[in-house]
Amino acid sequence: MPQYTPPVRDMQFVLHELLDVGAAFSQLPPHADLDADTVNSIIEEAGKFASQVIFPLNQSGDEEGCTYVGDGVVKAPKGYREAYQQYCEQGWPALSCDPEFGGQGLPELVNNVLQEMLNSANQAWTMYPGLTHGAYSSLHAYGTPEQKKVYLSKLVSGEWTGTMCLTEPHCGTDLGILRSKAEPRGDGSYSISGTKIFISSGEHDVSENIIHLVLARLPDAPAGTKGISLFIVPKFLPDAAGKPGARNAVKCGSIEHKMGIHSNATCVMNFDGAQGFMVGEPNRGMQAMFVMMNGARLGVGMQSLGLAEVAYQNSLAYAKDRLQSRSLTGAKLKDKPADPIIVHPDVRRMLLSQKAHVEAARALCYWVGLMIDQEHKHPDEAVRKDAGDLVALLTPIVKAFITDNSFESTNLGMQVFGGHGYVREWGMEQYVRDARINLIYEGTNTIQSLDLIGRKVLQDGGAKLKKFGKLVQDFVVAQAGREDMKEFVEPLMDIGDKVVKLTGEIGMKAAQNPDEMGAAAVPYLRVVGHLVYSYLWARMARLALDKQGEGDFYKAKLATARYYFARMLPETASLIRVARAGSGSLMAMDAALF
Amino acid sequence: MPQYTPPVRDMQFVLHELLDVGAAFSQLPPHADLDADTVNSIIEEAGKFASQVIFPLNQSGDEEGCTYVGDGVVKAPKGYREAYQQYCEQGWPALSCDPEFGGQGLPELVNNVLQEMLNSANQAWTMYPGLTHGAYSSLHAYGTPEQKKVYLSKLVSGEWTGTMCLTEPHCGTDLGILRSKAEPRGDGSYSISGTKIFISSGEHDVSENIIHLVLARLPDAPAGTKGISLFIVPKFLPDAAGKPGARNAVKCGSIEHKMGIHSNATCVMNFDGAQGFMVGEPNRGMQAMFVMMNGARLGVGMQSLGLAEVAYQNSLAYAKDRLQSRSLTGAKLKDKPADPIIVHPDVRRMLLSQKAHVEAARALCYWVGLMIDQEHKHPDEAVRKDAGDLVALLTPIVKAFITDNSFESTNLGMQVFGGHGYVREWGMEQYVRDARINLIYEGTNTIQSLDLIGRKVLQDGGAKLKKFGKLVQDFVVAQAGREDMKEFVEPLMDIGDKVVKLTGEIGMKAAQNPDEMGAAAVPYLRVVGHLVYSYLWARMARLALDKQGEGDFYKAKLATARYYFARMLPETASLIRVARAGSGSLMAMDAALF
Repeated sequence: MPQYTPPVRDMQFVLHELLDVGAAFSQLPPHADLDADTVNSIIEEAGKFASQVIFPLNQSGDEEGCTYVGDGVVKAPKGYREAYQQYCEQGWPALSCDPEFGGQGLPELVNNVLQEMLNSANQAWTMYPGLTHGAYSSLHAYGTPEQKKVYLSKLVSGEWTGTMCLTEPHCGTDLGILRSKAEPRGDGSYSISGTKIFISSGEHDVSENIIHLVLARLPDAPAGTKGISLFIVPKFLPDAAGKPGARNAVKCGSIEHKMGIHSNATCVMNFDGAQGFMVGEPNRGMQAMFVMMNGARLGVGMQSLGLAEVAYQNSLAYAKDRLQSRSLTGAKLKDKPADPIIVHPDVRRMLLSQKAHVEAARALCYWVGLMIDQEHKHPDEAVRKDAGDLVALLTPIVKAFITDNSFESTNLGMQVFGGHGYVREWGMEQYVRDARINLIYEGTNTIQSLDLIGRKVLQDGGAKLKKFGKLVQDFVVAQAGREDMKEFVEPLMDIGDKVVKLTGEIGMKAAQNPDEMGAAAVPYLRVVGHLVYSYLWARMARLALDKQGEGDFYKAKLATARYYFARMLPETASLIRVARAGSGSLMAMDAALF
Repeated sequence: MPQYTPPVRDMQFVLHELLDVGAAFSQLPPHADLDADTVNSIIEEAGKFASQVIFPLNQSGDEEGCTYVGDGVVKAPKGYREAYQQYCEQGWPALSCDPEFGGQGLPELVNNVLQEMLNSANQAWTMYPGLTHGAYSSLHAYGTPEQKKVYLSKLVSGEWTGTMCLTEPHCGTDLGILRSKAEPRGDGSYSISGTKIFISSGEHDVSENIIHLVLARLPDAPAGTKGISLFIVPKFLPDAAGKPGARNAVKCGSIEHKMGIHSNATCVMNFDGAQGFMVGEPNRGMQAMFVMMNGARLGVGMQSLGLAEVAYQNSLAYAKDRLQSRSLTGAKLKDKPADPIIVHPDVRRMLLSQKAHVEAARALCYWVGLMIDQEHKHPDEAVRKDAGDLVALLTPIVKAFITDNSFESTNLGMQVFGGHGYVREWGMEQYVRDARINLIYEGTNTIQSLDLIGRKVLQDGGAKLKKFGKLVQDFVVAQAGREDMKEFVEPLMDIGDKVVKLTGEIGMKAAQNPDEMGAAAVPYLRVVGHLVYSYLWARMARLALDKQGEGDFYKAKLATARYYFARMLPETASLIRVARAGSGSLMAMDAALF
């Protein structure tokens, strides 16, 4: 059976030493009085809930899966509903929500820490409340005062959960061709008709009501994404008292049988003239949905961070425990029949690759979380703008780079177990199966890479990327005279220069031939991802160097930083070659010749 | 539902154009009269059997899995037994077996072609007969005349199936510490006691008898791998007439619930004083088992080749069919709402990476298959020795490089499907789950990499690697004056030079510190793997260049070769850096600091 211990010390390192959140929060009026102790005690409580209540349901939930009982009724696995009730009773859904609607008004960053632990404990369970927070954000940003009044407090309390209804059988990536219809009813509401697929948490027995946010077209809508509007479609229409009232004409047709996340219900949802209420302006639904989608993309990165952490913990425990073969340099445990496999260099490669990835991913996710708080709450508009630009730049990297690395990472964790890794009982193969979806949903990793190179980098002439470059520059300048930082600063500068050059090259080629952008996008995102990890690892190395004398934690951090630069960053040598290889070899063959 | 069409044209290209098997067979007395037409018609029949009989059971078998009925009884999924009977009736188990025992005496290479197709059709089903062929080879090489008489004809006909019983709960990689015991019974036979785990096809209802080849220790055996002997332990002891007689004291305790290969029974086997018969000499069981293990390692490469082929076929069909978004260079199908996704550069990356890998893997597997025939049947001892050396060198590459690449490849195939790839119905996620075991069993890919650098390369001072280098050299020299071959020959020479240099460096460092070997092994194997693929792709490019005018098949082959050199071989730039990075960053941290 797998184990999970919330990595509290590592979390505190990122929060208090790397990000100095105490100082950062003091600049944000709503959080000016939030101190480190409060943050730490919330993390501790959240960790107990995640590891003691949610984690024990992970394997049983995977084994049992969801059940389509018939006639639109879906049951989550045993214990899921009760755990969700506890989650609500303890107030976790409200953590970072607006106090006006019953929220606790804590930073998004603190919610990110909670999300990491919940995902380590059980990604599929966490998807029930996970999308609710996205629906909350979208309605908070675009809902009418009346809509906010009816829905927000229920989403904040967790009594009602939310979904995103975008995909249809013939369209996922390409929402411009979606067909679901919204006909005005004459009373200000709409009749929504159409079929949506792959709807996570679309139907279940975990909460008393489900609020679908649905993309559909008005009768006179223009073609493409500029003719899509967003609607609230509740499973039960709220009555005058705000309680679940009449059953709406939206019904689950079936649930998918999937590779992983078995215990989250992935539903086909049929809307048959269901009553819906428009959110935001007509034909501008994509704008409101993007609030939810951007949150969801960062959320997917957090899912993968969580899985990579728990897989690492378990493979590390196994590597210390399992005795097999002798060290190549001679027996280490002479009184035992063999040495623990952590003595073997390649087992260490598998462990250190996981460790270096998880710790960089955590630093990145939390940093982005802090910048989201700054984007929304900092009094200085320039700071808000900069934070928002960096969040926009880093969102596809959080989504694609972390999920790709975490799939690799959970596979390495499984590989450490040898044959035992392939057997369900040990739990490792579930992490691989669960992690696999994260490369696909909320925009495939190809789409993320096109978002990065196209919308986030080339569209503004590299302005956002330059903002990131400025941070790197400032850090590098601040290390002047630190001989001991050279081993980190030099490769950081080198990859920074290479990103600048590569970006320029792709930009020039893409101006001639847009396929050049598509041909370079995926390796380009990985190169930029490594620039981001290099920056974060160099910063963490600096902290560790300064505190080397203060214990093993810092020694380990420093060794992990060195591992990253020695054996993971070099991936960029190949990636840059491939990103430069151009579209020729990709586009040469006619489709019929494949 | 997935589809499978045997890739007959590609197979024929490798057999007749790349390997010129007609000429090669003519040098081998047992096959001197085997002509291309006969080979082709066998392939055609095998393809029908694989695609029409075995393939339709793949998804249903995965869904149903094996059943532990109780009291040691295991049932394979519906249809498996009947399909196996047809397999035997059609004579497929006998294809490459010795005519003295009822075999058809065809080359191993022809059997490899059959294996590829069976594995594309259904890896888990193919594991029932798959290990039988290994047991046949081991007994054919080391059995007594009496043992051969009793067992070989039954294994050749397929009436009885075989297993390899090596792993125990506390040992897998490290067989030196295995504990199963063999006590002499005084009648020349032995009582075998112990527990073996992860025994593929250990118990089932597919065949009437199961012949276990079991590693165990004699009472006076020295410690380590030099104290291990090999025993035949039949489920039913053959009676005087050679029919299954008394039930032996070997029983399946349980079956594993696994990530994939659900329809193959992975068994815990309890030997409780079961009667066994020694194969080969006392304490030299590893030698006899290695005949089976080397065959199994190549077999695992063939499993992954098969899965990569079928995953590629399905993702290609989907990419041509699925309409989603417009080409970046403007709409291609103006009368449709979107273009087929094969217009997008990154979808082509996913397809071409699969295609370039599958075609190189097939060339490698078939070439090794031919060399196995040459090793055993060529009249010239020097040819036999060279072939044997190359097979030994290439075995870990077939096992590890092909399985790693195929896991990546099946994942790319799944990714082409977007969300549909994650849903069981489409079949793509099964290929990923099934492919995952191939990186683990028959020696993890780490073990393969240590076998390559340690036993196959450094142990003989690089003699086997030089034999491979000579082939590359000869090919390069033969291209002199071919301007059109430069684009292939130059990178081939370059990677060849780099392998020589890297090998020398690792050898020198490893002489000082054996952990340097462990630290470099995995990236080193991938670098050598790319040298092998470069050699094969350059040879295939030459054939394609010469026949460019003869149709689309050769144009596609040439374009795929160019893709390989432009976008896959560059992986070596990073691998070489990592292989050179040394053991320092791996070994620096004390285990307690992780």
